Formats: sequence, structure tokens, C-alpha cells
Amino acid sequence: MTGDKQGSQPQTAQESQATSTTRRPVCILGLGLIGGSFMQALTAAGRDVFGYNRSEATVDAASNSGYDASSDLVATLRRAAADDAIIVLATPVTTIEPLLSAIAETAPQCLLTDVISVKQAVAEKVSRLHPHARYVGGHPMAGTSRSGWDACDPTLFTNAMWMVTTSDDTDADDWTAVAELALQVSAIVVPAAPDAHDRAVAAISHVPHLLAADTAAVGAGESNLALRLAAGSFRDGTRVAATEPALQRAMIEANDIAVLNALSEAIDRLVQARDELRDSGSVAALIDDGHRARMAYEEMAARGREPIVGVSVGAPGWASDMRKQAHEGRVWLG
Amino acid sequence: MTGDKQGSQPQTAQESQATSTTRRPVCILGLGLIGGSFMQALTAAGRDVFGYNRSEATVDAASNSGYDASSDLVATLRRAAADDAIIVLATPVTTIEPLLSAIAETAPQCLLTDVISVKQAVAEKVSRLHPHARYVGGHPMAGTSRSGWDACDPTLFTNAMWMVTTSDDTDADDWTAVAELALQVSAIVVPAAPDAHDRAVAAISHVPHLLAADTAAVGAGESNLALRLAAGSFRDGTRVAATEPALQRAMIEANDIAVLNALSEAIDRLVQARDELRDSGSVAALIDDGHRARMAYEEMAARGREPIVGVSVGAPGWASDMRKQAHEGRVWLG
Repeated sequence: MTGDKQGSQPQTAQESQATSTTRRPVCILGLGLIGGSFMQALTAAGRDVFGYNRSEATVDAASNSGYDASSDLVATLRRAAADDAIIVLATPVTTIEPLLSAIAETAPQCLLTDVISVKQAVAEKVSRLHPHARYVGGHPMAGTSRSGWDACDPTLFTNAMWMVTTSDDTDADDWTAVAELALQVSAIVVPAAPDAHDRAVAAISHVPHLLAADTAAVGAGESNLALRLAAGSFRDGTRVAATEPALQRAMIEANDIAVLNALSEAIDRLVQARDELRDSGSVAALIDDGHRARMAYEEMAARGREPIVGVSVGAPGWASDMRKQAHEGRVWLG
Repeated sequence: MTGDKQGSQPQTAQESQATSTTRRPVCILGLGLIGGSFMQALTAAGRDVFGYNRSEATVDAASNSGYDASSDLVATLRRAAADDAIIVLATPVTTIEPLLSAIAETAPQCLLTDVISVKQAVAEKVSRLHPHARYVGGHPMAGTSRSGWDACDPTLFTNAMWMVTTSDDTDADDWTAVAELALQVSAIVVPAAPDAHDRAVAAISHVPHLLAADTAAVGAGESNLALRLAAGSFRDGTRVAATEPALQRAMIEANDIAVLNALSEAIDRLVQARDELRDSGSVAALIDDGHRARMAYEEMAARGREPIVGVSVGAPGWASDMRKQAHEGRVWLG
């Protein structure tokens, strides 16, 4: 059933290490949980990696662990330009504008990617501040509620979904170079358009966080009697509401347009259920839709990952073909 | 922290077996998952139990397992009347009207309780069809998605919350007799008014089921890409949507008034979050409220169960005092 999930991954990563693009060094800007874990994972996979972080404390922690880190942004970008490094933006989306301006100024020829959880907002900032960038967006679906260098983990991305954005004008070599970074840290590559990414993440992560918060607030607001009775449906339905509020807000608010659409659908469905219950005593429509949806999820999870097939990166129409197959739930195994 | 949860329970059950009310036999009407498990658990605790079920197949299965079951309702109720048995209604709320009429006709003096997940609707039917009943409502917060005699489990109620309704005119001996049934099967007794019960269960069970269905429907409706990316927040938030729709509907629809109120609050909070996100780019209010609520739940779960203290069942104002303490999240340990 799911036996193919892990077996093919290391092999693919080893194969990709043999290609020339994987010799290029990687320059990571921001050494928080994701950036720092990526630095550790790529180093473990044999890549040359160096990085920048604004805080000296993190730079010291990384350096003391044997990693190549600096708090000098311009020097780091000069080195990236000289080495033809792949630059990875790994800071919150709210802080990337000065970084993009500095990259456009100092390392304009470098291939640029990111690990930020929203894709349209990043693409918009890139096209405004670094309009001639060679940019391919990325988003590893991985994380924990912990933060800082000590929380970094080189296995954080193992079997995680890693979105790599794919547009009709995406350069095939650049796309491959970014996708291979993800494969090298044992992630699963999902090629998707930026807007499709944002809609999907709103639907399966951001709106679920809002509904978990809603479930918790309504339940706990009733009485301590209610909380005392709370069992499985409340416990599981509110688990992610325990995540640090600032982390939840940063993720949801950066994806505001897609969240507004998915949240409006969530509200409409609840209003219809309320009206149906009031007028005919039934909640059939919502409960049936929800049950069918959960069964579809379980079936897809049980079936394992279907690979994208019959697409050669760089061939005519490859990006569109990949997006279509990704839309059907398929992944790229390299 | 939670060391008191299990330690005091068996002792209390043993103590209560020594009292005279616990000698009375128990007559269970309906031998499904809850009724059948209750028959097994009470038998294991040393009570005399007999039961009725409409389907001969279930009666045969129970009889073949050594239990005392019949498909003759009138004969069963005559026996209950003759033995002064405590009668337990253990069928869906939609099917209790003819049973209540038969009890009023054949066994009107017997103490009556139930194990149904809604309390105001049952109380209303009892007062209409059996107005002079000695009735104390009950609701064990236990269950599985399985059904039928084979799914019955005598340990189903261990450490489960068992609501026992408490009104100002509740007879103290009758209340104690029903509460002791729950203690004998190792449940935790929570005394609550019928309306408080229904509101609490709407808030921490029925609305969470509707929000889980909503989360699932919105997520799965976006694309297979979205389902492929679905991770922890979607998986946990939709788990209970996998429950058989008929079971979810029966539970929610029987509690329609309380569900309508709690669902309206859930909708209002989501609408406010949508407006805040649209107008100011923030989801702070909902995320903060949800986080605080989840922390309150975790704190209460970690603290263990606080017992109701200083109330002697039957003393002036005992029922009101118990309800107030239950409203604060306390439980009755006997």
C-alpha cells in the first residue's frame, strides 16, 4: 500500500547528487527552524552550504556546531555571486523585502528560491523588487512548534511534501536545480502553480487552524462542565489550537486572499447546516459531505503516492503537464 | 496530578455495593452497544440484570452469552414491576415513545433512567407519556463507532463521564440509586441539569462534529493536490468526520435546540474572523481565543478531577449545590 513511499527516495537523492547542478553551493538567508534544518540536512547530503542570519547568537550557535554562517549580509551575497550559489530565502515573508533588494543589487544572477509558506505574496515581492530574478518558489510542508537553532533537525524534511512552483515560463534547469535540493533532503516534490499552492494550503491547513480555534472557543466558552465532559471530538478537533498564536497568525495572515475564499466557503456550509437543522431538523448535507471528504482523504493516504509520469522536464508543455498531474494529487520523484 | 482518577473509583464502587439500593435488579430496554455493554458491566459488578430487545437475533446472542434477555416487552416490564427493578431506557431517542407508554401502563412504580445522549428531549417525552414517573436521566459519555451485541464491552464505561440529571425536585434516593449504577461500572458521575447537559454536549461534541465535517468538506473540495498536501491540522481536525453519518446525525439532530445556539456562536466567530482578516489583515481575535480555550482544556485535563465536596445528598438544597459544583467542572465520586 504505502511501501513505495520511503523506498525510492534515497535512491533518487543519490542519483541526483551525480548531476552537475548539485555541485553548486547553497546560500541560506535565515537560519531559523526551517533554514537551519535545511542547512544541516543539505550538509549531511554532501552539499556545500553557507548562510546568513541577522542575529549574532544564531550565527555563533551555527558556527560552534561546525556550520559556515555569517551575520554580514553583503559579504554573504558577494560570496554567493562569486560562487554561483543557489540562494534560499528562509525568513518570514514580512521580512524579505530588504533581502530581495540586496540580492538584486549584489547577487542578481544567482538562482533564487525560498521556503516560505505562501507563494503568491513572495512571487509578487520578487517581481517587484528583483524583476529579472531567476526565481523558482518552494515550500516544505514541515515544521514543529519549536524554534531557534537548537530546534533544528536535519531529518525535518524526510518524507515531507515540498512544493516547487511551476509556471509556463519556468526555466527547466532552474526548476530541476530547486527540486533536487528538496530531493536531497528526502522530501517529496509537488510541482504547483503559486495560486494553486495558496488555495490548497488555505483549504487543508489555514482554515483547519481557524476551525480548530473556533471549536475550542465555543467549547470552552460554555462552562467548565463542558470542558470536563470534553472527549475525543473536542480533543482532536482543537489540537492545533495549542500552537503558538503568533506562528498561526503569521502563516494564515500571509495567505489572506486564499484564506478569505476558503473561510467563506466554510462559513457558507455551516450557515446552510444551521438553516437545514432549524427548518427540517436535519444536518444530513454537511455530515454526509464531511464523511465523504474524510473517506477520500483516507483512501488517498492509504493508496500511497502516485508519481508524475510521462513528463520530461524541459520538453514542450512540461510545466503545464506537471501542474495538471500535481492537481490530481501526483508527486515528482525525480 | 492525575493519580486520583483511578485509585478511588473501585473502592467507591465496592462501598456502594454494600448499600441496600444496589440489591435491586436492573431491567435494560434495548441491548445495543450501550445497553448491552451496561448489561455486561453491571453483571460483572454483581448486579442482577435482565433485558429486553426487539430483535430476536440480539436476544439470542445475549442469551447464548449467558445473559437474561427477552424479546417480550410486556413480560419483561411485568417482571420489572414485580421485582421493583430499576428500568433503563437504552434505545435511540426516536424510539422511546411506545416504550414509555408501555412502562406507564405496566411498571409505573419502577424507578426509571436512561442512557440517551440528549436530556431535555427525553425529559419532555417522559413528562408527557409517563407523567408520574420516578425519573432520573442519565448519559454515559462513551461509545465506539461499532454496534451490535458483538461490539459490547463490559469495560466501555471505565473512567467515562456519566451525566446524572439533577433538578430541584429530584428524589435523593432515586438520584443516588441511578448514580450508583454508574459508579458500579467504574464511570465518573457528573450531576447536571438537563438543559446544562444539552448545552455542554452541543459545545464539546455536536458542534465539533459539524466543524470537523466542515473542515473535511472544504479541504477535500479544493483539489486532490490539497488532499495530497494534507497534514496534521487536517488529519486531526477531520478525524471524527469518519464516524458513520447516521450515528452522527442521530446524536446531533436529537439535540437540535442546543446545537442551533452553539452553532450560531461558531458561525458568528468565523464571520468576525473573516471580517477582521478582510479589513485589517488579522485573525488575532479568533486565534487568541482558540489558543486560550485549548490551554484551559489542557490545564483542566492535567489537573485531574476535582470532587464535589460539602454536599450531602438529600440535605436541603443538595441538588442545586451539586449542579453549581458540576458547572465548575467538579464530579461526584460517591
